[in-house]
Amino acid sequence: MKLQVGVIGATGYTGYELVKLLHRHPQTEIVWATSESSAGKRLSELYPTPDDTPLIKQADAPLAQADVVFLCLPHVASMEAVAQVRAAGARAIDLSADYRLPDPVVYERWYEHPHTQTVLLGEAVYGLCEINRRQIAGAELVANPGCYPTTVNLGLWPLARAGALGPRIIVDAKSGVSGAGRKLRLGSHFVEANENLSPYSIGYAHRHIAEMEMILGPHVQGEIEIAFSPHLIPVNRGILSTIYIEVDPALSEREVRGIYAQAYADEPFIHLLPPGQLATLGHTVHSNRCAIALTPLPRPGQWIVTASEDNLLKGASGQALQNMNIMFGLKETTGLL
Amino acid sequence: MKLQVGVIGATGYTGYELVKLLHRHPQTEIVWATSESSAGKRLSELYPTPDDTPLIKQADAPLAQADVVFLCLPHVASMEAVAQVRAAGARAIDLSADYRLPDPVVYERWYEHPHTQTVLLGEAVYGLCEINRRQIAGAELVANPGCYPTTVNLGLWPLARAGALGPRIIVDAKSGVSGAGRKLRLGSHFVEANENLSPYSIGYAHRHIAEMEMILGPHVQGEIEIAFSPHLIPVNRGILSTIYIEVDPALSEREVRGIYAQAYADEPFIHLLPPGQLATLGHTVHSNRCAIALTPLPRPGQWIVTASEDNLLKGASGQALQNMNIMFGLKETTGLL
Amino acid sequence: MKLQVGVIGATGYTGYELVKLLHRHPQTEIVWATSESSAGKRLSELYPTPDDTPLIKQADAPLAQADVVFLCLPHVASMEAVAQVRAAGARAIDLSADYRLPDPVVYERWYEHPHTQTVLLGEAVYGLCEINRRQIAGAELVANPGCYPTTVNLGLWPLARAGALGPRIIVDAKSGVSGAGRKLRLGSHFVEANENLSPYSIGYAHRHIAEMEMILGPHVQGEIEIAFSPHLIPVNRGILSTIYIEVDPALSEREVRGIYAQAYADEPFIHLLPPGQLATLGHTVHSNRCAIALTPLPRPGQWIVTASEDNLLKGASGQALQNMNIMFGLKETTGLL
Amino acid sequence: MKLQVGVIGATGYTGYELVKLLHRHPQTEIVWATSESSAGKRLSELYPTPDDTPLIKQADAPLAQADVVFLCLPHVASMEAVAQVRAAGARAIDLSADYRLPDPVVYERWYEHPHTQTVLLGEAVYGLCEINRRQIAGAELVANPGCYPTTVNLGLWPLARAGALGPRIIVDAKSGVSGAGRKLRLGSHFVEANENLSPYSIGYAHRHIAEMEMILGPHVQGEIEIAFSPHLIPVNRGILSTIYIEVDPALSEREVRGIYAQAYADEPFIHLLPPGQLATLGHTVHSNRCAIALTPLPRPGQWIVTASEDNLLKGASGQALQNMNIMFGLKETTGLL
Repeated sequence: MKLQVGVIGATGYTGYELVKLLHRHPQTEIVWATSESSAGKRLSELYPTPDDTPLIKQADAPLAQADVVFLCLPHVASMEAVAQVRAAGARAIDLSADYRLPDPVVYERWYEHPHTQTVLLGEAVYGLCEINRRQIAGAELVANPGCYPTTVNLGLWPLARAGALGPRIIVDAKSGVSGAGRKLRLGSHFVEANENLSPYSIGYAHRHIAEMEMILGPHVQGEIEIAFSPHLIPVNRGILSTIYIEVDPALSEREVRGIYAQAYADEPFIHLLPPGQLATLGHTVHSNRCAIALTPLPRPGQWIVTASEDNLLKGASGQALQNMNIMFGLKETTGLL
Repeated sequence: MKLQVGVIGATGYTGYELVKLLHRHPQTEIVWATSESSAGKRLSELYPTPDDTPLIKQADAPLAQADVVFLCLPHVASMEAVAQVRAAGARAIDLSADYRLPDPVVYERWYEHPHTQTVLLGEAVYGLCEINRRQIAGAELVANPGCYPTTVNLGLWPLARAGALGPRIIVDAKSGVSGAGRKLRLGSHFVEANENLSPYSIGYAHRHIAEMEMILGPHVQGEIEIAFSPHLIPVNRGILSTIYIEVDPALSEREVRGIYAQAYADEPFIHLLPPGQLATLGHTVHSNRCAIALTPLPRPGQWIVTASEDNLLKGASGQALQNMNIMFGLKETTGLL
Repeated sequence: MKLQVGVIGATGYTGYELVKLLHRHPQTEIVWATSESSAGKRLSELYPTPDDTPLIKQADAPLAQADVVFLCLPHVASMEAVAQVRAAGARAIDLSADYRLPDPVVYERWYEHPHTQTVLLGEAVYGLCEINRRQIAGAELVANPGCYPTTVNLGLWPLARAGALGPRIIVDAKSGVSGAGRKLRLGSHFVEANENLSPYSIGYAHRHIAEMEMILGPHVQGEIEIAFSPHLIPVNRGILSTIYIEVDPALSEREVRGIYAQAYADEPFIHLLPPGQLATLGHTVHSNRCAIALTPLPRPGQWIVTASEDNLLKGASGQALQNMNIMFGLKETTGLL
Repeated sequence: MKLQVGVIGATGYTGYELVKLLHRHPQTEIVWATSESSAGKRLSELYPTPDDTPLIKQADAPLAQADVVFLCLPHVASMEAVAQVRAAGARAIDLSADYRLPDPVVYERWYEHPHTQTVLLGEAVYGLCEINRRQIAGAELVANPGCYPTTVNLGLWPLARAGALGPRIIVDAKSGVSGAGRKLRLGSHFVEANENLSPYSIGYAHRHIAEMEMILGPHVQGEIEIAFSPHLIPVNRGILSTIYIEVDPALSEREVRGIYAQAYADEPFIHLLPPGQLATLGHTVHSNRCAIALTPLPRPGQWIVTASEDNLLKGASGQALQNMNIMFGLKETTGLL
């Protein structure tokens, strides 16, 4: 029998992408989908699709009918909704930021809202599949990672785990416009974004820094110092992070490459590029992969890592489905190739 | 002394384009500029420009200080405003649709609003420069043409005037997104418009048909039958109209081409393309030109006209400035090359 | 056991798209893939993909190992290659134009090259799945339709079959740049195509007219008169055809819509849009669907049909795979949802 | 009398942009224009323009008729051509890299070709207008700066001159596709560049590093260490450089901002943005401006500078014309506003 799946918040870009993935997944069935703003309509009235999935209010969703519920809500809005899903006995995969940061103090500092579900927060597993696979397998609640941190954490994890990553990290990241959501904003207006390139919230201002510090911080020598500069680029989908790092200068180029090759040897969704190649959006858009390339600078111990993903797939709904596959013991790549 | 110019509605795409043109024009000076939504701010707070032009409420604009006032307002909103400008003694160039159609009944049918300024409507000159140049020169009130009709009317005028144009006209038009304005709408969201192409209001539904019927209707044999299909394309600026027409089959290809060559021989802003070439957006964007190409079909009397323009220049603010040059006896190309 | 598949010409856009589809298809296995220009390399050296499929010369391809061979070659080049594939005993799906037109005289007129395989030409089935499904099922050689004609023929077929389509047809078509292939040409240079829109070969000049005449011609009253105007638009993928037709004026709007609804009731890849909606690229890109919408004009018997598809999927490789599914008795949607 | 201007290499993107600027400049007249590949044609055969400027071979150009010659040639090719222009008595503005680096050893290291005109090289003035204005005024030969270095050098010059800039500089730069020229290359193919983002030659590999080291190197403490990562973005024009620097930590934020405000107080083409704003492409495309914004990081002495320009204007032909204005004592902004 197929997994019975509920989707809360099905009409934003991540929700709609997830619905498309679930339809293609051979072992899932959508039992209900919600939208507060469009309840009573069908998905085909909101997107150019023949998909006639009806949309209901979250309050009307029969939570207990679902084996697993995906929540595609804004942060804060998801906090309570996850609790209801768990209370109804369904496993939860939350695409918001609400359960990503285990320390409620850190959460509140970045998201400017107290965390009201601290017990549940303690149970949540951070769903970065390649790093936390074992914990995800047994989890009842998975917090799906942010789009930018997925490129940075996957791009640096092998070095961090090996104790070879220096604390000063500069991330110059570029994201397609779907990352800003479907909400109407001047910055997402075609004429404003097209033929343009706009940095925003650069330096030490963007909330996604918290997830980078959480994953990498414990492994670097001394205090981690991240500068993070996101840019909006005129494409629909995709993130490229160009990451400037310091690596233990005792390691040869070959050793650095070996650390990555070993860490990601069996990973179906990591595309480690050969020397001389660089990650581009083209390597990953419309796939669930993360592409990673390593470029040494002339001065010993200085490297540039380029890492790309599709922000709606490996950066959101694709990784959420990968988490579901892991949680329910399915082949991890099912519905994702 | 420079012409003293007022701009009503300076912060939409046509208003902002006009302000940029006026700054480059050697014989004009902006004495005031209005914006209802952004009064109190400066232009540099709304657009990425060093231009610090202050914005005031329309009600606070010293109308009488201006020799000429450009109105870049939505239709209906412009109706009354033009009357105030004229009452204050300034000449007016209205970029809205309110004074384009001399018959108030026709206006009301298309714009679903009664015309409250019928006397003034009687004075207005339709500012299609290449066709009405003489009347424009003496006008106190010029109604600047719509973007789509400018390509169609300029593209067909020589044949119409020669009495050689058949009544059945199919216009398949494509416009950049700036044509839909700066207002936030889902159809203008980058992710929705990019990598997409959307027809809208096709057939006999778009208001701009009225201007085509007004200019061409009196010259065709029998009753004019226009089918007009606009499409939104993922570019910032530019309109291309592909126009399917019937031409008096007694005319040879050479004669048809001759009619155009003669009609537009001295026109600085008409770029008549040689046989074998077709008009593209590239011919006209960022210029005040209209490019026109003629392609015969194998069957006698059937032709395709391709005509392009920059919708913000020849299709709006550029032509408005051209009208100003004509009205005030300046060299017609001043500030427009 | 999986179908053993060979691909000739795997490195153009249609070949590469096909390889991606074949990898996702659960019942196929690529046994070899050829590229004249890149033999000796792997696919991952030509595209940003982890796919390491090795490329061999066509002359080195073990044709007989394949149950079915897809040919993604330019026209003329495919003519002989298909013969070799058939001689080796494999079934063939040809994506070129070489076997689409059963009359070698018509072929030579449009493609300016004599047809050297007229016997084989007699066996070929035109692979427009929704129309020729039964013949495709038994075919040894399927000629996959052209991209533009697929939108036009699917968009008009129900009316044509019902004897209700008039002979005068105007097709204003718009295609993404992948339709022009991966070959380097100035028109496909980013700076030339971006922020531009270019008609080309308009009127009665484009070779794809032959496929429209072939399918629709026998069904209209009198001699068919097609005007066909393709335009290059700045998107990667997708075709939208805006089609101006005359329909038997005795038919009510309801009857016209009923003819389409009945014709396509059970078609998994036809998305018939409800009244008031129009086909856009967004309806079909990255899917194997064709979206069709019907818009009546005020004058009886005049309609506009909008029809869209992804030129690389339903317009090429997707339909080729759909043909394979039909030929081998697989579920028609396998690998295509 | 107007300045008599010759253009060598008028048909690449910078050459064509220059021709357009010269036509709009009220005090210049193009006396001849060359193109090796298109001699005998007119400009209107190569670009969608009514400009009928005839193109001749460089060898046929009457060099001595020109007061000033612009050279828009690839590096190495320009070396000899400049010498011929100077020998004929015309002043020269060279847009290639051949005369930018005064030390022939440095030139050869980066451009892998010996410099054959070392005497002339000694005379050349580096035409970064805001920095070398006085030397440019008297120069017979001006080497127009590279596109990327212009953003970096203008973005950091005030701090460098003040002795407050640290030696470690990371430049993450993004450029539109026109920067790669009109030559056909797979990376400039629409389908490859659109919806993509590609880093290239990152780290310490791109030749433009030499111009940054030349301008900034003498002013930093210790040895300058530049990491420079260019990226190709899917826009036609524009460069944005996001620059990570170390500044003397003794300086307050206010002092740093004051240094820039003072340095650029009277510069018509520098748009210094207020605190809280960031430079975007929108600030500068289709203008000759460079926009600069300063963002402090939390840790003292760490700043991010964002700097943008239009690569074809301030990054090439616009600055070349600005240099001409300075060289001939014209108002510096003539033809550039």
